[in-house]
Amino acid sequence: MSRMLVLTETDLRPILRLDTSAVDCVEAAFAALATKPVAMPPILRLDIPEHRGEVDVKTAYVPGLDGFAIKISPGFFDNPLLGLPSLNGLIVLLSTHTGLVDALFLDNGYLTDVRTAAAGAVAARHLSRPDSSVAAILGAGVQARLQLEALTLVRPIREARIWARDPAKAAATADDLSAHLGFPVAAMAAPEAALRGADIVVTTTPSERPVLEAAWLEPGQHVTAMGADSEHKNEIDPAAFTRVTYIADRLSQTRRLGELHHAIAAGIVSEDKNFAELGEVIAGTRPGRVRPDEITLADLTGTGVQDTAIANLALARARAAGAGRAIDTKAAAGDIA
Amino acid sequence: MSRMLVLTETDLRPILRLDTSAVDCVEAAFAALATKPVAMPPILRLDIPEHRGEVDVKTAYVPGLDGFAIKISPGFFDNPLLGLPSLNGLIVLLSTHTGLVDALFLDNGYLTDVRTAAAGAVAARHLSRPDSSVAAILGAGVQARLQLEALTLVRPIREARIWARDPAKAAATADDLSAHLGFPVAAMAAPEAALRGADIVVTTTPSERPVLEAAWLEPGQHVTAMGADSEHKNEIDPAAFTRVTYIADRLSQTRRLGELHHAIAAGIVSEDKNFAELGEVIAGTRPGRVRPDEITLADLTGTGVQDTAIANLALARARAAGAGRAIDTKAAAGDIA
Repeated sequence: MSRMLVLTETDLRPILRLDTSAVDCVEAAFAALATKPVAMPPILRLDIPEHRGEVDVKTAYVPGLDGFAIKISPGFFDNPLLGLPSLNGLIVLLSTHTGLVDALFLDNGYLTDVRTAAAGAVAARHLSRPDSSVAAILGAGVQARLQLEALTLVRPIREARIWARDPAKAAATADDLSAHLGFPVAAMAAPEAALRGADIVVTTTPSERPVLEAAWLEPGQHVTAMGADSEHKNEIDPAAFTRVTYIADRLSQTRRLGELHHAIAAGIVSEDKNFAELGEVIAGTRPGRVRPDEITLADLTGTGVQDTAIANLALARARAAGAGRAIDTKAAAGDIA
Repeated sequence: MSRMLVLTETDLRPILRLDTSAVDCVEAAFAALATKPVAMPPILRLDIPEHRGEVDVKTAYVPGLDGFAIKISPGFFDNPLLGLPSLNGLIVLLSTHTGLVDALFLDNGYLTDVRTAAAGAVAARHLSRPDSSVAAILGAGVQARLQLEALTLVRPIREARIWARDPAKAAATADDLSAHLGFPVAAMAAPEAALRGADIVVTTTPSERPVLEAAWLEPGQHVTAMGADSEHKNEIDPAAFTRVTYIADRLSQTRRLGELHHAIAAGIVSEDKNFAELGEVIAGTRPGRVRPDEITLADLTGTGVQDTAIANLALARARAAGAGRAIDTKAAAGDIA
């Protein structure tokens, strides 16, 4: 009753990887958003401008899952000057029946990396053409790698291109991914070149100005924009909204924090336009792609249901593997529980 | 860098008790609210009505403190049927410089108990008459005990009365407190009798209807209402607002969640009335009690700055005592860090 399971990043990495079951679990969470009385309050946000810091707290209750996650995600952007990562965080999983803490995932953001990449796979599975084989990734960070890997789980990818502001980083990432995934991954000098002939495009940058111009889009492409998760971030040229079928992860959130926010600000779409959400497309209650030559755009800002889904999966895996350590809050932390 | 200190309730109880330094630390936090650019976002609230559950997440950044707390407070009101406590929770303390987790307090709400009682002492220190010697407590739960104990830290209390809906519980609490505090504590059959001649009144019930009638108030009394922390809770007769000098812990919050909320709803005070906050009284920028025969009412709904203050104190105490256990998130949780 007063016991909880504690797992570190090191405990979690071997038992929960980006694989089809992670994708399926995030897909089910999105479907629940459209079909069940999910409770997902707005993100709690704290800013600490003195240290270029920010913290987001996300949560969601999904009926039918035993636990609900509360995720604490700090981003402190001067940390690299101190030799520390900018992004960190942990997830607390509480019982939906008692509110007691079932598990603490001291994951430094690892589960977020996995569930974010899994959401990219879910978007591609439901919005890209089934025969999509060429991927373009803008950005060369952790998500750039994971998003490409995620695409290979759902589409027959046989070639990829990477563009990033830092050409050396793009080249290194392309080399790594080529070796890891077993198909050619080329670093490109310009984003436009990366997009040409691509079936699926994923933008994974922290950019505050568009990195993808509307004119570059080609019929039949699917674009997943997953970099923007706050008011000032913007990867997609607002003019693209005149050419695409737009799908939000959570419309109330993308209106404030996503690419949609900038299209509304630019006066290109109206604020009250009732776009479909990814969960509705999965559940079949709203259409996604209806024609092969359509251009689709998935705007992923990150939702609490993804955290709740991946945290439940992580606890199931941990129990099955006997991983982690039980702590009894009614005993000293140093005692083995 | 990837290490954090983990303390359980059992670790925390001996090193952080309700004492003058806890009161001073919470007092300083309230003063900071009035004098420093504190960042305290609105509470994140998730409701799970199927299980009569709710979770509040509170946070506050106080310039000058090394850490900021994020507190997760679940309340699941069917838990007693399962032999479990209704209230639980934990506090995460993050570095204000890097956002890294410095400490995890798996306290099951213990630090909240202490900081809430300490706030009662702070209110009494600044709003009650200095010669206050008779206390009345409405309610007989954990806070009833702690609030009376807290008053003894700041005022020369020599007698107390307790009233609660359950007379047996009131009697047992009165007996315990009398033995523990060394002065007479009597259980009273009616709240009105408890108030008669009292200098300080503390209401600590989860009531949804007033337990304190306006007509019972006597000149010179100070009342601290600390039971209400959500829209539907209400301890003080709204008519009391015509007789009292009202002080909020956080005005934007008591307008929504406190006794003030019900006085506004009853049309007795206007929504935009700019009442003083406790921190302003402490800082001396707004008056509190100005006459001995004045009746003061402190409306305490609980604030993130209290959590941040007590969590910083707890970490300092833990380090000084060598208490708790370090966990390295880059190692397995089972390994001694």
